[in-house]
Amino acid sequence: MSNIRDVAREAGVSVATVSRALSDPDKVSQTSLNKVHSAIDKVGYRPNMLARSFRSAKSYAVVVLVPDITNPFFSQVIRSIEDRAQQKGYAVLLGDTRGVPEREKEYIRRVETRLADGVIQLRPDDPNRRFEMPADIACVNVCGCESTSGPRVRIDNRGSARSVVDYLISLGHRRIGVISGLKDNPHTVDRLAGYLESLEAAGIEFDKSLVAEGDFTTWSGLNSAKQFCAMPDKPTAIFCMNDEMAIGAIQTLKQHGIRVPEDISVTGFDDISYARYCDPSLTTVTQPAEEMGKLAMDMLLRLIEGEDLAQEENVLPAEFVIRKSTAIPRKD
Amino acid sequence: MSNIRDVAREAGVSVATVSRALSDPDKVSQTSLNKVHSAIDKVGYRPNMLARSFRSAKSYAVVVLVPDITNPFFSQVIRSIEDRAQQKGYAVLLGDTRGVPEREKEYIRRVETRLADGVIQLRPDDPNRRFEMPADIACVNVCGCESTSGPRVRIDNRGSARSVVDYLISLGHRRIGVISGLKDNPHTVDRLAGYLESLEAAGIEFDKSLVAEGDFTTWSGLNSAKQFCAMPDKPTAIFCMNDEMAIGAIQTLKQHGIRVPEDISVTGFDDISYARYCDPSLTTVTQPAEEMGKLAMDMLLRLIEGEDLAQEENVLPAEFVIRKSTAIPRKD
Repeated sequence: MSNIRDVAREAGVSVATVSRALSDPDKVSQTSLNKVHSAIDKVGYRPNMLARSFRSAKSYAVVVLVPDITNPFFSQVIRSIEDRAQQKGYAVLLGDTRGVPEREKEYIRRVETRLADGVIQLRPDDPNRRFEMPADIACVNVCGCESTSGPRVRIDNRGSARSVVDYLISLGHRRIGVISGLKDNPHTVDRLAGYLESLEAAGIEFDKSLVAEGDFTTWSGLNSAKQFCAMPDKPTAIFCMNDEMAIGAIQTLKQHGIRVPEDISVTGFDDISYARYCDPSLTTVTQPAEEMGKLAMDMLLRLIEGEDLAQEENVLPAEFVIRKSTAIPRKD
Repeated sequence: MSNIRDVAREAGVSVATVSRALSDPDKVSQTSLNKVHSAIDKVGYRPNMLARSFRSAKSYAVVVLVPDITNPFFSQVIRSIEDRAQQKGYAVLLGDTRGVPEREKEYIRRVETRLADGVIQLRPDDPNRRFEMPADIACVNVCGCESTSGPRVRIDNRGSARSVVDYLISLGHRRIGVISGLKDNPHTVDRLAGYLESLEAAGIEFDKSLVAEGDFTTWSGLNSAKQFCAMPDKPTAIFCMNDEMAIGAIQTLKQHGIRVPEDISVTGFDDISYARYCDPSLTTVTQPAEEMGKLAMDMLLRLIEGEDLAQEENVLPAEFVIRKSTAIPRKD
């Protein structure tokens, strides 16, 4: 079996360079890195990275905690985290928690027991949760809310909601329904605050019968929209707090013979890939998934290196995209 | 800092039981497991699992290689793999390869260098690829094809395609278009074989102008469908080799004023969650994503334990679901 000296000889570099190429590739020039990698392939060297991890007390892995990996917005963020992690020599451990604190805890135990070096959490920090992140765990929150603490990357949920509702009001809508997430969810809280601010600025009184509670699944959008279909005085627009609920709501409206956007306008949030392919295509808010994932990974690496980022909050700009699911209200 | 003896004392079990609960939880009763976990929490014990891994030469992690994690069918399979892995005390390392052999190779190096114990590969085995899996790597293929070798879990792609096309023929369609994946892709090969078998059994001559090549993305379905819209003698049905291309194709047809299914029927493959929410809802083939992921993880664990599974192929039943995107052809 070949060893690190064989690699150095083949590559024509020092043993120290080979060692650095394996443990800290960022600090080695691309030319040397290429030489070392070809030499490794040629001599068939297989370093015991587990031994390296044991010596350095680092695992070169990070845990990504996600409430639901089948949510297409989250999978876009994860893809970007993985991309950046791989560039930096780190692996991504996938923790699909389904929102269950016990599952989350098990993954965090991996960091405590040194099988991972840190955590990226893809959910809003919920003040009512039973489980708290231990203070000594390197952790970055991405996709959080105004109430989220610690190092974090997010968009301005309240401001984005306001852009959507302001736009609906500018079209002439006054009776604007909402399909929200669960009412205690921090995303619900921030986005509802934006909705209320828009109404207030336009002098429209808040009517709480126009808020239907969903849970961010397509199914819940489909169900919540039924309550609007049954109203004698229906809203002329519905602001849905994510795209999946908007897609579900549109299906229900169509089944009731209500045309979108001619009879009722519908808006989403996130801009998942289906938002542009559904019928009609969705007016929504684009979250910068790729940039959020990359920045979160970079922040986590700085934390792992010992930097203090407790106060670092990055609020990235979100874009409001107008497609075909919104129009001026029908004149009856 | 507390140690394993403190945990045993607190839990009222032997040190050997605590050790087993950490390394091989399957072999410990649920009662003892609960006692050990409460005791660990209470005394604040944090075993150095990296040291355990180093001693046992096992990392208790598996790599999942996936060409595209944002594909909702793949993310369903991964969710099920992760679920099973967690039950068995394993972590899942995510390898989003984007079909690039170099990225795949880097992840396989993690197994070679003992940072992971095995690999689950979520793609068909392509005989034309430059890169081959080294023989000594524990690897299970899931979502493969007839040409895939090694331990594997898949559905009968050819038979499933035949069910779809037989159904279209039974409705009275004779001129059936296809939107395929890239033509060398093994899924394309198997599904096209099924299409051809159906035509032959019904005595319908194959017309190669009815095959449009896509690449399994929504965008490619949208583009490929244009070629059918431009034909003077259009197909009355289009068999799309996945749901995303079907969703794209439906959008193009609608933009050309072609009604689905009244003018042209469209079918998909996979049954991703949007298949039931698009308009019209898709007639498609349901792949048993959850069962496939679970079985693949179980097979990998057996491989890691040293079992010889080289000849084990599991072909799971797929279901054909009739929704609203198909109808009898229009009588002109």
